[in-house]
Amino acid sequence: MREVAILGVGQTKFGELWDRSFREIGIEAGFSALTEAKLGSHDLGALYLGNMASGAFLDQEHIAPLILDYAGLSRHHLPAIRVEAGGASGGVALHQAYLAVASGAHDFVVVGGAEKMTDVPDDLQLAITSAAADQEWETVFGATLPALWALVARRHMHDHGTRREDLARMSVHSHEMGSKNPLAHYRNRITVDQVLGAPEVADPLGLLDCAPATDGAAALVLGPLEKARRYTDTPIRIAASEVACDTLALQHRRDLTTLDASVAAARAAFGRTGWTPSDLRVAEVNDAYSISGLLALEDLGFVEKGAGGPALREGDFGPGAKLTLNPSGGLKAQGCPFGAVGIAQVVELVRQLRGESKDRQAPGATRALAHNLGGTGATAVVHLLERAN
Amino acid sequence: MREVAILGVGQTKFGELWDRSFREIGIEAGFSALTEAKLGSHDLGALYLGNMASGAFLDQEHIAPLILDYAGLSRHHLPAIRVEAGGASGGVALHQAYLAVASGAHDFVVVGGAEKMTDVPDDLQLAITSAAADQEWETVFGATLPALWALVARRHMHDHGTRREDLARMSVHSHEMGSKNPLAHYRNRITVDQVLGAPEVADPLGLLDCAPATDGAAALVLGPLEKARRYTDTPIRIAASEVACDTLALQHRRDLTTLDASVAAARAAFGRTGWTPSDLRVAEVNDAYSISGLLALEDLGFVEKGAGGPALREGDFGPGAKLTLNPSGGLKAQGCPFGAVGIAQVVELVRQLRGESKDRQAPGATRALAHNLGGTGATAVVHLLERAN
Repeated sequence: MREVAILGVGQTKFGELWDRSFREIGIEAGFSALTEAKLGSHDLGALYLGNMASGAFLDQEHIAPLILDYAGLSRHHLPAIRVEAGGASGGVALHQAYLAVASGAHDFVVVGGAEKMTDVPDDLQLAITSAAADQEWETVFGATLPALWALVARRHMHDHGTRREDLARMSVHSHEMGSKNPLAHYRNRITVDQVLGAPEVADPLGLLDCAPATDGAAALVLGPLEKARRYTDTPIRIAASEVACDTLALQHRRDLTTLDASVAAARAAFGRTGWTPSDLRVAEVNDAYSISGLLALEDLGFVEKGAGGPALREGDFGPGAKLTLNPSGGLKAQGCPFGAVGIAQVVELVRQLRGESKDRQAPGATRALAHNLGGTGATAVVHLLERAN
Repeated sequence: MREVAILGVGQTKFGELWDRSFREIGIEAGFSALTEAKLGSHDLGALYLGNMASGAFLDQEHIAPLILDYAGLSRHHLPAIRVEAGGASGGVALHQAYLAVASGAHDFVVVGGAEKMTDVPDDLQLAITSAAADQEWETVFGATLPALWALVARRHMHDHGTRREDLARMSVHSHEMGSKNPLAHYRNRITVDQVLGAPEVADPLGLLDCAPATDGAAALVLGPLEKARRYTDTPIRIAASEVACDTLALQHRRDLTTLDASVAAARAAFGRTGWTPSDLRVAEVNDAYSISGLLALEDLGFVEKGAGGPALREGDFGPGAKLTLNPSGGLKAQGCPFGAVGIAQVVELVRQLRGESKDRQAPGATRALAHNLGGTGATAVVHLLERAN
C-alpha cells in the first residue's frame, strides 16, 4: 500500500449553531480543507463522510451525496460514502479514506465529519446519542451513555483507588486547553470544586464530567505522500490507521475498566510503526466523559493500568509537558459533535505538527496520536501521524 | 491492487419477519456465508455492514460492532464498519470491503447487508425510507420516494412515449422470477391487469409498481483471488466495483429520465473490464419501482435511452433470453430490505454464475452485473462479476 499524507485541514466553529444548517457546516469545513490543499474539485477522486445520526437528528439519511451536491461536486459523479460508528464515525471515515488512497483506488480524497445535534430538545439528544449503546440490553432499560460510563468510573474507583477529584481534573484540563482554542464550544476555565459541585448526571459523574452536545464539522484532504509536496510544504504522514471493535454492551466485556478495543487499536498502530507512547509529544484522546479520558491514558499505554488517577492528580498535560493532551480542548471543551470529533482531533494534530497552534502548541512535536471512540468503546480508532519533512 | 473473489454467500428468507430480530438475521446470513467459504472466525480481517436506517427503525446505531459481538467475533477485536447510502448501503459496503481486500489491508472479510423494516407502522416506514431523498427540498413538502419516482415515470412517458403497461410489465416479470425463488418475499405471479388495477400510490405508479418494505439480511465472504481456490472450487471474481453519485434532490438533475450516477458507474465498470452490456447474460438491477427497473435497462446500456418501454413490451427477460433480468425476483418480488438489497443481488448472481439457480438459472452465464441504487439515484453502484474457472 502507498504512504498517505494529509494535505489540508478545515473546521467550523464548534457550538450551538442554531443559525446554520448541516449542509452549510459540512461544506464550510470541506472547502477550507480543499483551499488549504490548493486542490480543485476536478482533482478529487472520492468523498467520505463520518456522521452518527443525521436520520434521527434531521430526518435525513443518505447525506454523503447531499454534501457532494451542495459542495458543487455532483457533476463529477464522484463516490460519496457515509460511515457510521457512533462517536467514532469520523475516525472510521478517515480509516476508509486512508484505505482509498493507500490502495491506489484514488489519488486525492476529502474526508469530513459532521453532526448537527442541537436542533432537538435535550432529552431527545440523549436518547439519540445513547443509540450508540446496546438498545436491547442497555438503553431500553434506561441506561444512557453517561449512566454506562458512570458504571465504568465507579468500578475504576473501586479497583484502582481512583478518586472523584482525579476525574474532575480531566475536565479542568480540557477547559484550560479549550480556553486557548477559538473554535471551541466552551472557552471558560473551570476548577475542581466547580466540577465536584456541578449537578449530578449519573453518580459519580456530574454535568462537568460530560462533553456537551455540539454542532460542528471538520474535514481533511488526503493524497499519496509521493505527490504531497506539490500541494503543501508541510505534508503530515499517516503512519498508522487502525480500527478495532469490542462488544456493544458493557456487560459482555472482559473487564469494565479496560477498553480492549483501544488497547487493540493502539497495539496494532504501534506495531505497524515501531513507535512507543513515549515517542509522542501530543495526543488527542476521547474525553467525552472524564473517565473515558482517564482510561485512554491507560489503554493507549501512556501510563500503567490503574495509574490514570495519580497521573491526573500529579501530572501536567499542558503545552511543554512530556505529553500535551487534548490541546484542542478535547470533546469536553472543544465540543462533541459525534460524527465530527474523529476528524477534528486530526485537524488539531495536523496544526500541532505544523507548529501553528500558538499558545496551545506542543513544543517540538513531530509525532502525534489521535484516539476516537464510539459508544462505550465498542469501536476504537487510533491514527498515528508524523511530520513528513 | 489485488484481484478479489467471492468465496461464500448467505442470505435469510426475505419477508415480514416479525419473530426475528435484526441481530438474529444479520448473524444467520453471515454464518451461512462463512460456512460456505469454509472460513473460521480466526481467518477474518474485518466486517463491513450495509444498513440504511437502524437508528430510525430500531433506535439502534453503531450496529457493526453489535453484529460482530453477536456473531462471537468480538474477542478478535476486528474492525466492524457500517456504511449508509440509502437503498445503496449494501452495494457501497461491498465496495468498501472490496477495497479492503484489493488494497492488501485484509485477506478475508465478511460483508453483510441487513434491514429490519416491518416492526414499525406503514406510515413511519414511508417517512423513514424517504429520508434517502432531500429532506429540506423534497420530503419536508410531502414528496415521498414513490412520489418522486412517479415524477420520473411521468416525464419518461412524456419524453419517450413509454406506456403505463410497459411499466406494469416490469413488475409482472419480477413476480414471475420471484415465484421461482424460495427466499422471496412475494412468490405470487401477477398480471398486467392486476398491476393497472392496483390501488394508486402516486400517479402513474400503483401498489404493484412499488417494492415492499421487507426484513432480511445477506452476506458475502471476500478474499484475494490468488488464495480463493483453497476455499472454493467456484470462486467468483469481482471484475469491477464502482460507486458514482449525483445530486440528492431530483430538481438539481440534468435530466429527469436519465440517472447520471448509473451511467457513470456503468461506464467506469465497463471501462475497467473492456466488457460491453452484450457480454452479460444475467443482471440484477434496481426495480424498487417499475420505472427504476426500466431506467436501469437504458442507463446501464442494455437498450438505448427511451427504448426501455418497447424492450419491456416486446422482449423477454426470463431464463434463456439474451439477458436474464433480476432472476431473484428483484426488489419488487424478492423484497426490498434497504441495506441488504445490494448484497442480496450479488448473492443471487454468484449462485447464477455457479450454475446453482435451478429453474431460474440463466443458461451459460459466465459474467454478470449488479446495479444498486440509493434514493432516487443519488448513489449508484455497479459490480461486474465473472466465474473465475
